[in-house]
Amino acid sequence: MGLLKHLGKHLILELWGCDSKALDDQKGIEKMLIDAVKACGATLICVKTHKFSPQGVTGVAVLAESHISIHTWPELGYAAIDVFTCGEHVNPEDALPTIKSFLKPSNFEVIDIKRGNIVD
Amino acid sequence: MGLLKHLGKHLILELWGCDSKALDDQKGIEKMLIDAVKACGATLICVKTHKFSPQGVTGVAVLAESHISIHTWPELGYAAIDVFTCGEHVNPEDALPTIKSFLKPSNFEVIDIKRGNIVD
Repeated sequence: MGLLKHLGKHLILELWGCDSKALDDQKGIEKMLIDAVKACGATLICVKTHKFSPQGVTGVAVLAESHISIHTWPELGYAAIDVFTCGEHVNPEDALPTIKSFLKPSNFEVIDIKRGNIVD
Repeated sequence: MGLLKHLGKHLILELWGCDSKALDDQKGIEKMLIDAVKACGATLICVKTHKFSPQGVTGVAVLAESHISIHTWPELGYAAIDVFTCGEHVNPEDALPTIKSFLKPSNFEVIDIKRGNIVD
């Protein structure tokens, strides 16, 4: 029996009690995504954000090492964020301070999932 | 105590034993994403795919109802897919036949996560 390894680390973040202005700030969220990518040492391929009417923002940063996504509900103070990275040199936990600093959640839940489990 | 509801349905798909040619087919994966969006009745904002060298494809479909993402390892026959939708009229399970038909996994695991749980 070999060692269990995984190809990807996927953090599922549930943020409540966020700054509702930040949750509806498309440019701010785009900057947060780019800063989060840098913070965890990943390589950005492209970032796409979209503002909904009357409120809410969706954003995805496509990485050489998978992706970071965010979907916001400013009226509820809620954001659903995924930080999914692969490779040894990238640590998705390093994106968390950037995200917390911008969105200021009062309640922050992390579900840590390993993707692509393999026996080495 | 009210009824527990959720804002989003997030299917985490672990596919092994896929068709390795399909896993490395950027155009085919882009078409699969668009077909999967249609199949689950979602609205496409944009789709972005990227081909890695020597192998592997990443793709993200940004939706009015969240996102669908895929990251592939053709050399391992593996794909990590997320189908995350919000709203009552969209059913992420409806994307699965399109995905299975294109990638032909021999092993298909689904982790079903509810996002944004609220007491109504």
